[in-house]
Amino acid sequence: MSKKFAKTPEPPYYAVLFTAQRSEGDHGYGAMAEKMHQMALAAPGCLGAESAYDAGGFGFTLSYWKDEDAIQTWKADADHLGAQRLGKARWYEHYTIRVARVERAYSGPEGR
Amino acid sequence: MSKKFAKTPEPPYYAVLFTAQRSEGDHGYGAMAEKMHQMALAAPGCLGAESAYDAGGFGFTLSYWKDEDAIQTWKADADHLGAQRLGKARWYEHYTIRVARVERAYSGPEGR
Repeated sequence: MSKKFAKTPEPPYYAVLFTAQRSEGDHGYGAMAEKMHQMALAAPGCLGAESAYDAGGFGFTLSYWKDEDAIQTWKADADHLGAQRLGKARWYEHYTIRVARVERAYSGPEGR
Repeated sequence: MSKKFAKTPEPPYYAVLFTAQRSEGDHGYGAMAEKMHQMALAAPGCLGAESAYDAGGFGFTLSYWKDEDAIQTWKADADHLGAQRLGKARWYEHYTIRVARVERAYSGPEGR
């Protein structure tokens, strides 16, 4: 099993679904994305995060959170706000953010 | 804006979050994945689907549904059951499926 999978607890918990089309070029994205990923994982109430982008720069970052308060606190983090500004200005052609309550979860195919 | 983005209605609705590590090799995956994507989009209550896998075969398929009944009906679809069997046997080293209720959503950066 890849370490890319988030090890989340039993539901319920929350998920932030970030779907994005990256702009062309790095423009500092790689370093900042890694920094934000690590900071999010260390943020209060963060249960894990997963991310993958295809060769065309379309992809997802899914992060998992204990509750809505944890999401709001991370959204308002000063360093994260700076990254959000750069994301809007430079890194993303388009994105959609969905906040969802995870109600059930299961893994495979080991359990088949 | 890429046509890869699902155009979903105002929440609430449901999302199925499929996080997967693909096995090496195609083994019929590409053709079946495209067929299942099109069948899901045509299924009753499906609001859209998005998918991206990175060069290492790790990635996501996110599908959006009107309600839990629509998810259960698609899960039990005969053709889809066949694809699920092949997925367990051949295509995925590991996967996690989360079912979540989308509570709010917004897009950017056009609206900034």
